[in-house]
Amino acid sequence: MRDVCIVGVGMTKWGELWAKSLRTIFAETALLALDDAGVDRIDSMVVGCMSSGLFVGQEHLSSLLADAIGRTPVPAARVESACASGGLALRQGFLEVASGASDVVLVGGVEKMTDVTGCEATYALGTAADQEYEGYHGLTFPGLYAMMAVAHMHRYGTTREQLAMVAVKNHDNGSRNPLAQFPFKVTLDGVLGSVLVADPLRILDCSPITDGAAAVVFCSAETARKLKKPAVRIAGSGQATDTISLSSRQDIAWLESTRVASEKALAMAGRKVGDMDLFEVHDCFTIAEIMVTEALGLVPKGQGGKAVEDGLTARDGKFPVNVSGGLKAKGHPVGATGVAQAVEIVKQLRGEAGPRQIKGARRGLAQNMGGTGGSSVVHVFEAE
Amino acid sequence: MRDVCIVGVGMTKWGELWAKSLRTIFAETALLALDDAGVDRIDSMVVGCMSSGLFVGQEHLSSLLADAIGRTPVPAARVESACASGGLALRQGFLEVASGASDVVLVGGVEKMTDVTGCEATYALGTAADQEYEGYHGLTFPGLYAMMAVAHMHRYGTTREQLAMVAVKNHDNGSRNPLAQFPFKVTLDGVLGSVLVADPLRILDCSPITDGAAAVVFCSAETARKLKKPAVRIAGSGQATDTISLSSRQDIAWLESTRVASEKALAMAGRKVGDMDLFEVHDCFTIAEIMVTEALGLVPKGQGGKAVEDGLTARDGKFPVNVSGGLKAKGHPVGATGVAQAVEIVKQLRGEAGPRQIKGARRGLAQNMGGTGGSSVVHVFEAE
Repeated sequence: MRDVCIVGVGMTKWGELWAKSLRTIFAETALLALDDAGVDRIDSMVVGCMSSGLFVGQEHLSSLLADAIGRTPVPAARVESACASGGLALRQGFLEVASGASDVVLVGGVEKMTDVTGCEATYALGTAADQEYEGYHGLTFPGLYAMMAVAHMHRYGTTREQLAMVAVKNHDNGSRNPLAQFPFKVTLDGVLGSVLVADPLRILDCSPITDGAAAVVFCSAETARKLKKPAVRIAGSGQATDTISLSSRQDIAWLESTRVASEKALAMAGRKVGDMDLFEVHDCFTIAEIMVTEALGLVPKGQGGKAVEDGLTARDGKFPVNVSGGLKAKGHPVGATGVAQAVEIVKQLRGEAGPRQIKGARRGLAQNMGGTGGSSVVHVFEAE
Repeated sequence: MRDVCIVGVGMTKWGELWAKSLRTIFAETALLALDDAGVDRIDSMVVGCMSSGLFVGQEHLSSLLADAIGRTPVPAARVESACASGGLALRQGFLEVASGASDVVLVGGVEKMTDVTGCEATYALGTAADQEYEGYHGLTFPGLYAMMAVAHMHRYGTTREQLAMVAVKNHDNGSRNPLAQFPFKVTLDGVLGSVLVADPLRILDCSPITDGAAAVVFCSAETARKLKKPAVRIAGSGQATDTISLSSRQDIAWLESTRVASEKALAMAGRKVGDMDLFEVHDCFTIAEIMVTEALGLVPKGQGGKAVEDGLTARDGKFPVNVSGGLKAKGHPVGATGVAQAVEIVKQLRGEAGPRQIKGARRGLAQNMGGTGGSSVVHVFEAE
């Protein structure tokens, strides 16, 4: 396989973008990424999107989005793995270039979630769970993650306060990210006193409903050298599945798909998790980030709550996690999230992250997850 | 890129499968394909599906289907390009093996379309068109293809009878395919007298609403040799997009994306279209097959109607098209169609197609199309 580099990134402000359609949101970020890369051609496109069918009544994004940016007849693919659709898009774009099928690939992620009512959005997101065994019985995602949180608290003594500390940390980071949907700080008391959604999870434990997109430009190492741009290499790519339904898991307080995917990505990169300078991970709920830090091996099983309390995952900690603000503060347009993680890490490795810059960052890891961990995609990035 | 072979195929009877869920339909065909290949492991999975979100309220097929066949934690991807989702799955699976990322890949396509009402199915299918510029103004797919048919008839003198002859031919072929949804013959008068859907298209010009799945097993040429199975090589893969909306096309009586995709696939294979012994193409409506034969270069522009009238595309003609019965008779579970085309060609190249066998077939081409040609995927297969 050939080496694959990222030579351009694009992202616009996320939020409730009433005045923009899915295609506009995508096109704006795609053109930013192409401009950043300084390329005037692409060989193919890959787009991650979870459910444009249910959110905006539009499938066939391959054609729609290639058309929207005036790039027909380039080959275009839309990929889906629920909330890991963006990470999956990175992986498919990686294979396009690594295989030699394409030399320059535009990889994007997009979701337009606010054109439906809250109930409809909850239903659409619920299609990431097992509809026949979970959804039809009334379970929604806050409910599923609440069960995981209860199991984790019961087994390991994780506290309600530790959950809240994830939100406090990520909003503190997000307050330094002008593109975040909610770029403000929250307090521990604020989280603990916020509206209860599914016990023990409160509204400030949950990532929001967001419209947004993100895009990156991949190319071969040879082309990256010609472009004379600060290139970031995709050193490792790992993907894994787990049973979709929580009831089939051996342990609902553990994310096996993340463990397998990160092991594969790190092995491909020839690195250990401790070699990474920063981590963008899938904090769709506060408990998720705690469990991800364990599955990645940053801390032993059961110690994720203590890790955030001890400041291990803070911006100035040993393992900075979600310096961008994470899904929690930055927002979570599901199909775009995985690509936005790559955008953040590239900005950090280029030293362009402004007030949230991790000094001297050379290596980063992105972990993107579908459903309750039914799928995970992990990528390792290194500054060239 | 490494050579990629197909060593196993699986398909079950298509139709209105009330008693089976999406996961069951998929699992049955996937297990048939794995059994046919004689492999006991896979490295990854790719599944084509257009809109499980709208049809059965289920996204996250990567996890759902890997779980359904007991293959977690293998990496799994779901890809979508409207009715070309199956063809796109073939292409992504091809890249998985060609790049060296995987050695054995299960590629499947599935759609469960009859769990919703007719109106809802028409709406779901309509999401393959441009919803904002076509769908919201009342256009459905029969209407879109009717406009293409009218343009073709007006410009080239294509007749109403020639459209009907496509249906007569494909049902004649389909009557020899026990897995077809409608394995019976229809007459010219029968087609011409059937219910009008969108002038000039009648119900027997349209492919049906279908539940079904299809699966194939890809592997490297080296592994295929070890398996000692009759292997079929994927000699070429081409993909292209076009503007999604008909109103943006230069010529609505021409399928540019199919022309570009087939040119790429044939160039990769080092073949000409005349070298092929059979063709499986996307006859979602009778006019579509006529236009595809032109875009592939089997006949000059405007001569597709005459070609079917002259028997050029008949089972015993120079260029046998849709010997399986095509979408018209075999059925059209949209995400499965592209994979089923590969299943038919592999059976033909192995000499296992029974009463519809093309004698001595060594090479075949599959063309799968999304929307009104907003995307096309073409593959070239050769017997080893």
